[in-house]
Amino acid sequence: MTVEKKLAAMGIVLPEPPAPVASYIPGLVCQNLAFVSGQLPTKDGKLLMEGTVGAEVSVEEAYIAARQAVVNCLGVLKFLVGDLDRVERIVRLTAFIQSAPGFHGQPHVANGASDLLQEVFGERGKHTRVAVGVSALPLNAPCEIDLIAAIRS
Amino acid sequence: MTVEKKLAAMGIVLPEPPAPVASYIPGLVCQNLAFVSGQLPTKDGKLLMEGTVGAEVSVEEAYIAARQAVVNCLGVLKFLVGDLDRVERIVRLTAFIQSAPGFHGQPHVANGASDLLQEVFGERGKHTRVAVGVSALPLNAPCEIDLIAAIRS
Amino acid sequence: MTVEKKLAAMGIVLPEPPAPVASYIPGLVCQNLAFVSGQLPTKDGKLLMEGTVGAEVSVEEAYIAARQAVVNCLGVLKFLVGDLDRVERIVRLTAFIQSAPGFHGQPHVANGASDLLQEVFGERGKHTRVAVGVSALPLNAPCEIDLIAAIRS
Repeated sequence: MTVEKKLAAMGIVLPEPPAPVASYIPGLVCQNLAFVSGQLPTKDGKLLMEGTVGAEVSVEEAYIAARQAVVNCLGVLKFLVGDLDRVERIVRLTAFIQSAPGFHGQPHVANGASDLLQEVFGERGKHTRVAVGVSALPLNAPCEIDLIAAIRS
Repeated sequence: MTVEKKLAAMGIVLPEPPAPVASYIPGLVCQNLAFVSGQLPTKDGKLLMEGTVGAEVSVEEAYIAARQAVVNCLGVLKFLVGDLDRVERIVRLTAFIQSAPGFHGQPHVANGASDLLQEVFGERGKHTRVAVGVSALPLNAPCEIDLIAAIRS
Repeated sequence: MTVEKKLAAMGIVLPEPPAPVASYIPGLVCQNLAFVSGQLPTKDGKLLMEGTVGAEVSVEEAYIAARQAVVNCLGVLKFLVGDLDRVERIVRLTAFIQSAPGFHGQPHVANGASDLLQEVFGERGKHTRVAVGVSALPLNAPCEIDLIAAIRS
């Protein structure tokens, strides 16, 4: 099954990439590496949820937010490469989790993104990861996720 | 107009790269990618301003700090490649903004860096970006910015 | 002296890479670049220390934690490439330091990692670096360190 059929079977609709912003862009391909800008857990143009994990947002909710943020990364990636089966490997995922002081479950939150990638891409979805807690994210989002992928030439 | 003439016309003087430190360096080129270490908004060896955005530092001030930090990145890049017109593409910019809890305007601050890159490099300056808020930066700087650029071989 | 003999002479034992996790992996090589996932200062499966730098953890202690985290990165790197002398260059190190508000000594902490790399790899260990303070890290670790290295083909 192709990556995009798998996404469809899971009921996941890839968003159009966000409208081009003045001075930075959602993604680009350079030397067979695709770089995707930090994505927030937006759906249909608004955040799935706002707030800080370990305070207003639970780990379970934030797991869903991380999954949505990486769906948005895949939307950008599809825009860049046309067909997600051209992705040879998800190389690096970085998850910034807006965290209350004393909250140390960032890996559980980031799994929302990592699990989806492996489910959809299989072996090609096994990536390296950095997951850290930060004090504040744009729009009061609970997480921001960016990635680098290798593209078949 | 070359990139460096454009910088001069804008009245921007690129700094010498910071003195080599014992165990890490300001930048290096590897496989046509230039990596620039995290730069603070220093000018003539001292910070333009200290403090936390959303507290002592306003968004407007921090925009100027982000612009200065990316000017310092360009100083390193010039040192690495000799002539900034050898830059094929600014690939990735990461902006860490020292943010007060509840401050969520990191994108507005990071635009200080992104706007400069596009102004100076045009299409080649359109980059991917990650902008997050952190609780503490070296020297109490309001921002730290690093980048990756593709270099013509 | 080879890199691994030097490590042995320094009394440093590289750990086995952490057990594979469900959906992300400790490291991978892509297009001659090795990416290592964020590593915590664990030894024999538990953290050397817990806590926030500038509060319960001193700079001197955190320096040792950063050194241990990068030893864990080298363990992953060895697993990836077989022989650490195949490392052509340490390209990028990112150090996230769990920091108390008002603590701005992240570079001193990150030197624990950077100094070790230069000691062990010499010129090949001179890397670019990003060091920032964050509010919360997995398991209440004082630091998390990731890296990218170029590998001889």
